[in-house]
Amino acid sequence: MYEKKDKKTAEAKTGLTSLAELGEFGLIDRLTKNVKYYHPETLKGIGDDAAVMDAGDKVILFSTDLLVEGIHFDLTYMPLKHLGYKAAVVNISDIAAMNGIPKQMTFSLAVSSRFSAEALDELYTGVIMACEKYKVDLVGGDTSSNIKGLMISVSILGEAKKEEVCYRSGARSGDLLCVTGDLGSAYIGLLVLEREKSVFQVDPNMQPELTGFDYQIGRQLRPEARTDIRNLFIGTGISPTSMIDISDGLASEILHICKQSGVGCKLFEGKIPMDEHTRELAKEYKIIPSVAALSGGEDYELLFTVKQEDYEKIKDIAGISIIGHMTAPSEGKVMITPDGKSIPITAQGWDGMRIR
Amino acid sequence: MYEKKDKKTAEAKTGLTSLAELGEFGLIDRLTKNVKYYHPETLKGIGDDAAVMDAGDKVILFSTDLLVEGIHFDLTYMPLKHLGYKAAVVNISDIAAMNGIPKQMTFSLAVSSRFSAEALDELYTGVIMACEKYKVDLVGGDTSSNIKGLMISVSILGEAKKEEVCYRSGARSGDLLCVTGDLGSAYIGLLVLEREKSVFQVDPNMQPELTGFDYQIGRQLRPEARTDIRNLFIGTGISPTSMIDISDGLASEILHICKQSGVGCKLFEGKIPMDEHTRELAKEYKIIPSVAALSGGEDYELLFTVKQEDYEKIKDIAGISIIGHMTAPSEGKVMITPDGKSIPITAQGWDGMRIR
Repeated sequence: MYEKKDKKTAEAKTGLTSLAELGEFGLIDRLTKNVKYYHPETLKGIGDDAAVMDAGDKVILFSTDLLVEGIHFDLTYMPLKHLGYKAAVVNISDIAAMNGIPKQMTFSLAVSSRFSAEALDELYTGVIMACEKYKVDLVGGDTSSNIKGLMISVSILGEAKKEEVCYRSGARSGDLLCVTGDLGSAYIGLLVLEREKSVFQVDPNMQPELTGFDYQIGRQLRPEARTDIRNLFIGTGISPTSMIDISDGLASEILHICKQSGVGCKLFEGKIPMDEHTRELAKEYKIIPSVAALSGGEDYELLFTVKQEDYEKIKDIAGISIIGHMTAPSEGKVMITPDGKSIPITAQGWDGMRIR
Repeated sequence: MYEKKDKKTAEAKTGLTSLAELGEFGLIDRLTKNVKYYHPETLKGIGDDAAVMDAGDKVILFSTDLLVEGIHFDLTYMPLKHLGYKAAVVNISDIAAMNGIPKQMTFSLAVSSRFSAEALDELYTGVIMACEKYKVDLVGGDTSSNIKGLMISVSILGEAKKEEVCYRSGARSGDLLCVTGDLGSAYIGLLVLEREKSVFQVDPNMQPELTGFDYQIGRQLRPEARTDIRNLFIGTGISPTSMIDISDGLASEILHICKQSGVGCKLFEGKIPMDEHTRELAKEYKIIPSVAALSGGEDYELLFTVKQEDYEKIKDIAGISIIGHMTAPSEGKVMITPDGKSIPITAQGWDGMRIR
């Protein structure tokens, strides 16, 4: 939802503002500052993982995402079936992030004539597999020619009971900050794929060496959405106070919750859940492991807050990590390193990720 | 919804099926043949202007459209403000075609670095103008970089009372075929703009001669959606039995209704409503005027059927034309010319439009 994943530099013309200058969220704020809402049933418009509309005892959730060839995916190593699956999952994840149930999806594509019908069969097989797994009805879309490359646009509807829906804005000082699964592997998987691509480009006879990286590559090419967490909340009686999915990286998502909730945050670096092999690989790539989690993104895990009183309910759940807590806004947004240093959390891009 | 407006030829590789070979609707049928629906509230999925979901006493309508630079628009003569307006209107029109009320919209774009923030301001100004006019809440979207050019994806939600919603499939033999407004002018407007573009390309010092073509150019650059027709139906007590909006041309839309309703059609060429000046311009361009209406598209008027018993209610309404009636499927889909000849209605592309 209104998140610009890439920061390609705009060519600034005299007197005009380049897109890079504004930054992704600056651009969105600028473009949407005059937006008015006319319908009282629109409970939440721009600014969360999905828009929320009142529908009596429940709410309708509405979200959309673009995937652009050369920006979000590289068909050199992304099989079309996986791409279709991932495009669906990325949207389903937005509904999971609202604590909702995904229901209906439209899948649109603009495609150049270099693609055959058989290639698009593969793409749709992936979409339909995801729809089957997550029980989502593919109800429409649009197909168009494209001058160059492939572009995918997916929109999704979901629903939730009114008391269940979970915004980015509900975190309060003292709430525990929690995350599902582990982080950083999708980014390391991307690095492995990029490395093998460059090897292949130098010598097309080289076979890519992908064995031993199955987990990381799987996380990158075929992510899953955490729609299961909703049932875990129901089963354990936990009510998350805020939630967001991790598409851009832990740091960026924490800052979203802090901004929208008007709170600060204390994150403990040592508590960030990571796969052991992913940690080792990060070091091989000269990246501080936690930074792969903080800035890597695309793990599609859920980041959420719960009230302190829910500590006993949540502390022993396998696959959920308590990684910090929310603070008064005056305390800032900081990460505490294992040796006790406090460093500000910033939404750095991948440029800042190399070990200094 | 799942309509491929352009038929760029695909480069067929050995053994593979090119997209051009399949045709737009063949491709859609092929890609979506394995789609299953899991939710009983999905009343209508792929195959109409919008998907329809049960929501108690009303239904939710859900539609999406892509607009691709170089395929759907040419920024040489399409001002960005108009483009934003049109992108919104095209989607609003899909909701009007279901006899629904447009409610919420997401607006996404992928944009290359050649665009400035000021250019995108213009684009959004147009979107927001359309949202204001049609009372639609802009509730989200996605922004992305693009390698080349501009691509827009809009998704829209609408609603209707359950008994009001109008499908393509409800026409019965004997029903009257009606159309709002007049047809063909948007296409003639495009021809005028294309002509002035070529003049400009030959001699950039030439000023474009657009005076006297205001109506045609306006229909092309800044179409409106016929959301007003819903109120006309309510006011006059008319219940349309089927409806579709005219985005691809009258012929193609008639064939959609015939196919989905399982009926034939008799269309009277002389009854097709056209602006007089548009007729004259068509002849200047060596196009049979009715063919501009039949194959031109982008007028965004509504094509609908009503029961014969509604004839008295509808016959004198200004701005509505009865252009034919539905028949038994065995009678085929034909157009009767003013001199009484019967010719089959075909969804010919623009190639077939020149006067023979």
